[in-house]
Amino acid sequence: MKARVHVMLKTGVLDPQGEAVRHALGSLGFDGVEGVRQGKVIELDLAETDKAKAEETVNQMCEKLLANTVIESYSVEIS
Amino acid sequence: MKARVHVMLKTGVLDPQGEAVRHALGSLGFDGVEGVRQGKVIELDLAETDKAKAEETVNQMCEKLLANTVIESYSVEIS
Repeated sequence: MKARVHVMLKTGVLDPQGEAVRHALGSLGFDGVEGVRQGKVIELDLAETDKAKAEETVNQMCEKLLANTVIESYSVEIS
Repeated sequence: MKARVHVMLKTGVLDPQGEAVRHALGSLGFDGVEGVRQGKVIELDLAETDKAKAEETVNQMCEKLLANTVIESYSVEIS
């Protein structure tokens, strides 16, 4: 199965990378960009074939390694 | 409107960050991880209200700034 994990900084946590992108877009002449947040996307190929088990495993991976849950939130899509 | 951009290394381009995650997951006891690719996700808040125009603009942003199209591919979702 394939899993896709999105890891984003939580709302309220300063995102300097996103701010840098917003400024750069402004400099390039792209107006009307009101906010930018940048995060990570991680695509996993899993040997597991059971969707529920795969989701459970990927959630554990996020808690233990992929996301820093103090400042980041994550979402998991299994396909 | 909100736009979400995914930027991933193209297939065939070595992804050391993804490989590092794969090894780390193995060390933590997560077996059955056959491959990991890591990329960026960029969420944009746009003042534009026309969906087609927003998509066109975001594609230009990707070409000019957000993705290095020599080694990265991108996809845009508008919502």
